[in-house]
Amino acid sequence: MAVKVYGIPLSTATRNAMATLYEKGVEFELVTVNMKEGAHKRPEHLKLNPFGKVPVYQDEDVTLFESRAINRYISTKYEGQGTPLFGKTPSEKALVEQWIEVEGQNYYPAMSPLNYQLFFKKMFSGEGPDEAIVATNVQKLNAVLDIYEARLAESKYLAGDFFSLADLSHYAQTEYFMKHSGKSDLITSRPHVASWWEDISNRSSWQKTITYGSS
Amino acid sequence: MAVKVYGIPLSTATRNAMATLYEKGVEFELVTVNMKEGAHKRPEHLKLNPFGKVPVYQDEDVTLFESRAINRYISTKYEGQGTPLFGKTPSEKALVEQWIEVEGQNYYPAMSPLNYQLFFKKMFSGEGPDEAIVATNVQKLNAVLDIYEARLAESKYLAGDFFSLADLSHYAQTEYFMKHSGKSDLITSRPHVASWWEDISNRSSWQKTITYGSS
Ligand SMILES: N[C@@H](CCC(=O)N[C@@H](CS)C(=O)NCC(=O)O)C(=O)O
Ligand SMILES: N[C@@H](CCC(=O)N[C@@H](CS)C(=O)NCC(=O)O)C(=O)O
Repeated sequence: MAVKVYGIPLSTATRNAMATLYEKGVEFELVTVNMKEGAHKRPEHLKLNPFGKVPVYQDEDVTLFESRAINRYISTKYEGQGTPLFGKTPSEKALVEQWIEVEGQNYYPAMSPLNYQLFFKKMFSGEGPDEAIVATNVQKLNAVLDIYEARLAESKYLAGDFFSLADLSHYAQTEYFMKHSGKSDLITSRPHVASWWEDISNRSSWQKTITYGSS
Repeated sequence: MAVKVYGIPLSTATRNAMATLYEKGVEFELVTVNMKEGAHKRPEHLKLNPFGKVPVYQDEDVTLFESRAINRYISTKYEGQGTPLFGKTPSEKALVEQWIEVEGQNYYPAMSPLNYQLFFKKMFSGEGPDEAIVATNVQKLNAVLDIYEARLAESKYLAGDFFSLADLSHYAQTEYFMKHSGKSDLITSRPHVASWWEDISNRSSWQKTITYGSS
């Protein structure tokens, strides 16, 4: 059975799963879930993911949801091919896990509401941003990015001097933030964060992901 | 070097790390960080964790923050002793990771604001709960718990018929929620969630954690 990813090419979490598969050189089929028509809330999809979200990953052994779990699974299963996404030693792996958690618990909770308020909300509901939510999360994100700036001043990537799943986990939210939030200066004003983003966003895995489907 | 955990016995994230160490039968020293006096925001602690939080884990190989990363590291490093916290096969491990992510991305973001509003806030600031925040998060948590109820109706633990790091990750928040939120009926009204909590909270790892320091 070929690897299947259920999702859509514009979904952030789906994109991170696609980037992981590209880094590992794993062929996959993207099975479109028609989210505009609510297909992700129908029984057929809820059987794959009771939370009614994308992506869902499927191969001959497992059906999985939650992108960060999917990405760990792919990185482990295909350990021997493509980019080593957990580093090479147990200590490196520990730091990769630490920075994946920093993304999930600190970076994402600040950046994702900003992407929603400043970009997706208009698209989905026609409404403008809630300025109080924007202000709170700009403050949170600034605090997080100060820590990233210090970290990336001493280390080329988040977990060390190697690209890893920790960096990759930042792809999809940061892409929308840079292009559509009107607040890309939060990144570009911090030289080490800016050059880290410049570096990782130019990897072919990410370029293939964001141009998926265009000829 | 002995294993050190920097934190305090009442901190939720510290407690989950302690429970992991007890499950694996690893001896450790709890190094108290005097949070009342702000020791977690001083340079000495910020060197260990730039986010100024607890816990921090330290052994001869690594210094780590972010409790879920710490717990994965301990579970992997001591794979051969104590409870196998990732299951036994790659597919089981994948499901453990999936449900750890469900905790981090769905359960915790709904329950932790409730614990703050309904318990910790009074202690820290003397103020009562913001009822709008409570209502929103009760609604979110109910939706999450409906999915848990369905899952635990078909499987004894979250990742399968074995206790794992996925279950353990729920310990500390659920403990405070059951004892101090005044909303324990969200758990007790769901028979499978209720008996899962009854089961896991009676494990000796958890009992040792919550009675730490009492003689
Ligand atoms: N924590 C999940 C989040 C997944 C998620 O939020 N997916 C979005 C698309 S990027 C979705 O399906 N939204 C539809 C909905 O929530 O109804 C993951 O990382 O996979
Ligand atoms: N995502 C972190 C959260 C850690 C956390 O929030 N720790 C709390 C105690 S349970 C803390 O140190 N709070 C102090 C602060 O945020 O200033 C983890 O899982 O370790």
